[in-house]
Amino acid sequence: MTAHSKHIAIVGAGLVGSLLAIYLRKRGYKVSLFERRADMRKNMLQAGRSINLALSNRGIRALEEVGLADAIRPVAIPMHGRMMHDVKGNLTFQAYGKEGQYINSVSRSNLNIVLMNKAEAEGATLHFNQRVTQIDTDKTTIAVTSPENHLEIHTFDLIIGADGAFSAIRQSLQATDRFDFSQAYIAHGYKELHIPAGTAGAFQLEKNALHIWPRQSYMMIALPNPDGSFTCTLFFPFDGETSFTALSSDHAIKDFFNANFPDAAKLMPSLLRDFYQNPTSSLVTMKCFPWVKNKTLLIGDAAHAIVPFYGQGMNAGFEDCRILNILLGKYHDQWETVLPEFQNLRKPDTDAIAQLALDNFIEMRDLVGDADFLLRKKIEAKLHSAYPDRWIPLYSMVTFNDNIRYSEAYSISRSQKKIMDEVMSRPGIETTWESLDLASIIQRLPNG
Amino acid sequence: MTAHSKHIAIVGAGLVGSLLAIYLRKRGYKVSLFERRADMRKNMLQAGRSINLALSNRGIRALEEVGLADAIRPVAIPMHGRMMHDVKGNLTFQAYGKEGQYINSVSRSNLNIVLMNKAEAEGATLHFNQRVTQIDTDKTTIAVTSPENHLEIHTFDLIIGADGAFSAIRQSLQATDRFDFSQAYIAHGYKELHIPAGTAGAFQLEKNALHIWPRQSYMMIALPNPDGSFTCTLFFPFDGETSFTALSSDHAIKDFFNANFPDAAKLMPSLLRDFYQNPTSSLVTMKCFPWVKNKTLLIGDAAHAIVPFYGQGMNAGFEDCRILNILLGKYHDQWETVLPEFQNLRKPDTDAIAQLALDNFIEMRDLVGDADFLLRKKIEAKLHSAYPDRWIPLYSMVTFNDNIRYSEAYSISRSQKKIMDEVMSRPGIETTWESLDLASIIQRLPNG
Repeated sequence: MTAHSKHIAIVGAGLVGSLLAIYLRKRGYKVSLFERRADMRKNMLQAGRSINLALSNRGIRALEEVGLADAIRPVAIPMHGRMMHDVKGNLTFQAYGKEGQYINSVSRSNLNIVLMNKAEAEGATLHFNQRVTQIDTDKTTIAVTSPENHLEIHTFDLIIGADGAFSAIRQSLQATDRFDFSQAYIAHGYKELHIPAGTAGAFQLEKNALHIWPRQSYMMIALPNPDGSFTCTLFFPFDGETSFTALSSDHAIKDFFNANFPDAAKLMPSLLRDFYQNPTSSLVTMKCFPWVKNKTLLIGDAAHAIVPFYGQGMNAGFEDCRILNILLGKYHDQWETVLPEFQNLRKPDTDAIAQLALDNFIEMRDLVGDADFLLRKKIEAKLHSAYPDRWIPLYSMVTFNDNIRYSEAYSISRSQKKIMDEVMSRPGIETTWESLDLASIIQRLPNG
Repeated sequence: MTAHSKHIAIVGAGLVGSLLAIYLRKRGYKVSLFERRADMRKNMLQAGRSINLALSNRGIRALEEVGLADAIRPVAIPMHGRMMHDVKGNLTFQAYGKEGQYINSVSRSNLNIVLMNKAEAEGATLHFNQRVTQIDTDKTTIAVTSPENHLEIHTFDLIIGADGAFSAIRQSLQATDRFDFSQAYIAHGYKELHIPAGTAGAFQLEKNALHIWPRQSYMMIALPNPDGSFTCTLFFPFDGETSFTALSSDHAIKDFFNANFPDAAKLMPSLLRDFYQNPTSSLVTMKCFPWVKNKTLLIGDAAHAIVPFYGQGMNAGFEDCRILNILLGKYHDQWETVLPEFQNLRKPDTDAIAQLALDNFIEMRDLVGDADFLLRKKIEAKLHSAYPDRWIPLYSMVTFNDNIRYSEAYSISRSQKKIMDEVMSRPGIETTWESLDLASIIQRLPNG
C-alpha cells in the first residue's frame, strides 16, 4: 500500500498532533484529526490566558523541517539565561549557553494555531468537539462522540494517539494484557499568576530572561509574553507548613509574597484574585510501554508525560514527530518496521528526559543559588570553551543540541558529574579553579 | 460512633476480603461482602482445578488470631525445603530453614471456602454475582450490578476494596488527582500443568517439598496436592527463541519437555492437552498510593499485587488484615486515625516484598544451582545456628518470622549481603569456610 492510499487518524489536535499531521500530509497520507475541544481559533476565550512554553533547538528543528520556523520567530521571545531573584530582590544572571544560544518563550495557543492552520493548509481534515470514547486496536477503528451524543465508528489504516498526558487512547491500551504503565505525582503543585505590562507595554522585568525566585523547597518562575506581561508560575508543596493548603487567607497570601518574593509582589496587582481563581494543578510523570499495539501508536505526552522543569515536554514531543518521519523515510513508509523501531529507539530517550526534568527541579529551586553549584558551572563553562566538542554541559546537550539523544546526554552527564565531583573535592578549588589543567580533565572522559 | 453501629462494605470475597470480614465482625462491625463471581461453595466446577498457594508464618498467624489454624492444618501439606531437579533428573534438597520450619501447600479454593464459611458464621453477609461498577468516595456509596443488570446504590460508613490486582475500587481512585499508580509486567508468563497421583493416590515425587527445575532463564515448579497429584507451573518467556511463542506444536512441546524436564515429563500424561488448554498468564507488579481516599481503603492485592516468587502474596494480604486489626485496637476503632497510619505503615513493607519477590525469581531459576550461592547458604546456616537471633537468613526473616517487618528484613538483608560479599571474596573460601571466625562476622552487622 502506498502512502497516498493510507488514511491515518490522529487523536488530539494539540501541538504534537497538529505537527504530526503536517509531517504525514507532506509524505502523502490522508490525515484526519479528532479534537475533543472546540476550535480555539474561533473561540479564543476558551483557550484562556495564554500560557507560555520554552521552545528550544529540538522543537525548532522540527518546525524548520515543516517550514514553520519563520512563522514562529516573530512571536517567540528569546531568553538568554536565568535571572535569579533573591529575597532582597538582588539579581544574578546566569547565561544558558554560549553567546547567541537561547531558549524561546512562546504562547501555547499561538503556536497551536499556527500548527493547525498549517495542517489544514497541507490538506489535513480537522474535526473539533469530537470525543474519542473507544478504540479497537484489532479492527483499527475509533468510536467518536459528538456534543449531540452522536456516536460514529470510523475505520482507519492507522490510529495515532496524540491526546496528551491523560490520553484516552492510552487508557484503551492500558486495559490490554502486559501493558506497563506508571503515573507518579510529585509533592508540589503549581499555580499561574500574573505580572502585567508597565506603561505603554513596557516589560517590568528583564525581557530576555527566564526569571527564577529559588527558595530551596519551592520556587516561582516568570516567562515574558509579547504584550509586555509575564506569566508567573509558583511551584509549591500541596501540604505542610509552607504550602497551598496553608495559604488560605488574603493575609497569609500577601504576607508570604511580601516576605519571600518582595520585588515580584510589588508588580502583581491581581495577586489575590489570581491566587484564588486560578487552579492549583498537579505535576505528574507518566510512562508506559509498549507505545504500539497492532496499528495504534501513542506519541508525545500520551506516551511520556514529564514534569516541566527542563522545558522539554513540547520539544520531546516535536522530536518524536521528527524521528518518526526519519524512520518512515528510511523504511519507505513500511509501518510494520517503523512502529516497533520507533518505540524501541525513543523509549530510552523519553525515560532519560523524564528523569532529567525531575532532577532539574532540585537544581532550579535549590542549587542555582548555591556557591558550589555556581563554581561547577564556571569550571564547566571553561571546559566547554576550551574543548567545545568534547565537554558540552548537560543543559546545552539537552537544550541547544539536537544531535545528541536525551539518553546519550544523560549518560555523558553521569561521566561528567563523576569527574567534576573529584575536581570540586580538591582543597582550595575556590581559588585555584582558574588555573586548572583542563587537558587532564578532558582526558578522563570515556573515549577521552 | 461505636463499632456496632458502623456498616462496612468489603468488595471482593476472596482470601483477603473474607479474612478481613471475620476480623471486623469480631470487632462488632456490620459487614457486607460483595463478590463478582458466583459462590464457589455451590459451584465447584467454576473454581476450576485447585491451584495451590504457599502459606507461611505471617499468614498462619492471622488465621490463628481468627481461630482458623486448626481448620487449615488438615488440608495443608508441609514443604520443608526445595527439591531441585537437574536436567538428568538428579535431586538436591535444600532445607528452607531449621528443623521443624516449613511452608505449606494449600488449595486456594479450599482455603477460601473455609474463610467464607467462617465469615458467614461470624455474621457477615455475603452477596455473590454482584459486580461493583462504580464507587463514590465522597458519599461512600457503591453501585452494584446484578447478573440481571439491576443497578443498586448502597451507602456505607466505610468501603474496603479487597478486589484483587485488577481492582475496580482502585480504578475509581486512579481517576482522582494525585493518585500514584504503576503496573509492571515481567517478560515471563506462566502456565499450569499437572502430575497426577500414582496408584492408590501415591505421590510420584517427594511429598513434603517444593520442587524446582531451575533452568537459568526459566524454571518449572511443582507443589503437592492432598489427592497425591502435583500442580506444576512453568515460568517461561513469552517471546524469543525459547518461549511460549516458540512451543507451538506437539513435537516442539514434547521435545522441549523431554530434553529439559525429562523426569517430570514422564509423569505428565496430559502434558499436551494441559499445555494447549490452560491459559498462558502474565505476571505483574502493581503499586499505588494513597490506599485511602476519604472513607475508602484498598487492601491486599488491590493495593499491592506482587509476583509469586516469594510465596508471599497471600501472606502479605493476611498480614494487612492483622495489622489493620491491631491499629483498630490501638486507636479504639477511630478510623480517621487508623486509615492514614495503616497506609503509611504498610506501604514500605509491601514495596519491600514486591522487590524481594522479583529478586527471588532470579534466585529460584538461576542461583539455586550455583556453587557460590550454595556455599553462601551453608555459611549463613552456620551463622544462624551459632547466633540464632543475630543472623537470620533473609528467607527465614520473610517466611518463618512474623515479627520482622518486610522492610526491615529487606534492609537487614542488604547489610548481610555486603558482609557475605566480602567473606565470599576471601581466597580459598571454598575450603576454609568451616573454620571461619563467626564472631568477627557477626560484629560487623549494624548494631553488632
